Amino acid sequence: MTSEDTQRRLDSLTKPPGSLGRLEEVLLRYTEIRGLEPPLELRAAALVFCADHGVVEEGVSAWPSEVTRQMVLNFVAGGAAINVLCRHFGIVPRIVDMGVQGTAVAGALDRRIAEGTRNFTRQPAMTAAQARQAISVGRQLALEAAREFDVVLCGEMGIGNTTAATALLCAYAGLDPAEVTGAGAGLNEEGVRRKAEVIRKALTFHPSRGRMEIAANFGGFEILAIAGVIEGAGEARIPVILDGFISTAAALVVSPEARWPVLYSHCSAEAGHRRMLEFLEARPLLDLDMRLGEGTGAALAVGILQSACRLYHEMATFEQASVSTSGRAPDRRSPAPHS
Amino acid sequence: MTSEDTQRRLDSLTKPPGSLGRLEEVLLRYTEIRGLEPPLELRAAALVFCADHGVVEEGVSAWPSEVTRQMVLNFVAGGAAINVLCRHFGIVPRIVDMGVQGTAVAGALDRRIAEGTRNFTRQPAMTAAQARQAISVGRQLALEAAREFDVVLCGEMGIGNTTAATALLCAYAGLDPAEVTGAGAGLNEEGVRRKAEVIRKALTFHPSRGRMEIAANFGGFEILAIAGVIEGAGEARIPVILDGFISTAAALVVSPEARWPVLYSHCSAEAGHRRMLEFLEARPLLDLDMRLGEGTGAALAVGILQSACRLYHEMATFEQASVSTSGRAPDRRSPAPHS
Repeated sequence: MTSEDTQRRLDSLTKPPGSLGRLEEVLLRYTEIRGLEPPLELRAAALVFCADHGVVEEGVSAWPSEVTRQMVLNFVAGGAAINVLCRHFGIVPRIVDMGVQGTAVAGALDRRIAEGTRNFTRQPAMTAAQARQAISVGRQLALEAAREFDVVLCGEMGIGNTTAATALLCAYAGLDPAEVTGAGAGLNEEGVRRKAEVIRKALTFHPSRGRMEIAANFGGFEILAIAGVIEGAGEARIPVILDGFISTAAALVVSPEARWPVLYSHCSAEAGHRRMLEFLEARPLLDLDMRLGEGTGAALAVGILQSACRLYHEMATFEQASVSTSGRAPDRRSPAPHS
Repeated sequence: MTSEDTQRRLDSLTKPPGSLGRLEEVLLRYTEIRGLEPPLELRAAALVFCADHGVVEEGVSAWPSEVTRQMVLNFVAGGAAINVLCRHFGIVPRIVDMGVQGTAVAGALDRRIAEGTRNFTRQPAMTAAQARQAISVGRQLALEAAREFDVVLCGEMGIGNTTAATALLCAYAGLDPAEVTGAGAGLNEEGVRRKAEVIRKALTFHPSRGRMEIAANFGGFEILAIAGVIEGAGEARIPVILDGFISTAAALVVSPEARWPVLYSHCSAEAGHRRMLEFLEARPLLDLDMRLGEGTGAALAVGILQSACRLYHEMATFEQASVSTSGRAPDRRSPAPHS
């Protein structure tokens, strides 16, 4: 099955060719990545990676690190936004503890690497071995998901992780923190200035520009796990739908050639996301001023993809509906019953 | 119930305040319009108005007028894109024959005004009485829908109706057809030029700038019916979700004060839609390069609104989940269990 087959089916349906716009685009991308026809019922898994960040001790977040654990418990109990959307869209959630402060969070999948990263203003956030381990966790979970599901979406939770993602963006894209640092989960203007200053100092402290060194210097365990999902998704040929600013930072971590199975779900209201997407030459499906993370934007994009799959399978063809095709482009002309 | 109550509920949920972005905005708008709390299960009706256009004899469409009837039969049989999306989202479709060429379309609701409009390059598309009648049909259907449903969405079908909508846009907003005329259901470049020329001539032929005169000169029965839905939705306090270029033209027809119950679903790929939305100071929810009409973009927006309603009802509050609120803005601070 190739995307040409999918295109042929789309052009046989009772609509002007191409008129479903980006819904047609995602169906073609699905076939290109998966090598299969889009399914009628899309089976989706949500991998939600959670971890703490040592840099929070620099006062870069409006919330204390304790909130990471509290929110992971909320995920496990089914009360968070991502849980609601997973139930609504029939997505199977998997909550992964990559390194929350304190003990393992009961009910989450334990893939803990450490009790959060270290404060990257003073030392690398993690060792090279920890970075490889986090990527390997994501890769394994993607390979597993590909056996049961049609798409996998990635979300995250980690107080302080917009700081990590912003540092990664600045390091990979050569940007000034003042341009792209945002409010995260709710900093005021002064807080944003302080956060940008913290990032600037850290960038000076870690001058290396090697791809994996940058990842270890500034990354989070959840971000590197998502990078691993992207790599595993490439191997297993399953589309991976990224959520917002933090998830998208994982696409910076992998090599440009490894990004091909990625669908970008939405543009976040977090300041740096638009620039990050531009750097990746990515055009997300949705732009709803969301900035919650967890995978919520990706879940809404799954909803769009589910709609597209339904249209693909359930619309009548021109032939079935006896609709004239005389107005269509010459290269797609077929016998027109009414002209 | 006021939108302040809805805001209070949203701020009690386990997420940074405002982080659901436009999903929160549509919930607030819902309460503002309907005067009620957003429902858990959103009951939506789709009113799909269908009519033919005399101006098609000027060669302004890539498809013959016969296709209008063929597509209405496809709607009645359940095979069109709007049918698939209605089934997928649990939306109840109502197909309304406002004036398809030939006899009444079996299976559609018969509200026929004439066998299509007249060719507006030579005479007004309809009489003033026909215009009032079309608006009255829409108004009645909105009042009926408001008794059974929480929102109503509008779609349309009518070969030639991008020409009518473009003429309305130019007349109401004072624009040049060359700037805003698009390919409709598939014209080539030369066809678009001819269509713009036809519209330019018609604008010169009908110099009146009165609101209802413009509507009768260039409108379609389906477009005026949608204008009537907007007016009826205002009376009955039910949100009306408009689809793309043609539906949005109906918002130009009503007085600016009558537009308050309108939600704009998506920005169409049809050339003039972005300009039309700017003129209306409207920011649609979605931008997916769709240009199919029928109500398909509005149906996807209903999907977004359904997700928002679920989140509103099913997310845990900070209190329920024992999540610290210490990081939140001072005006919304409440006892923080972990700080």
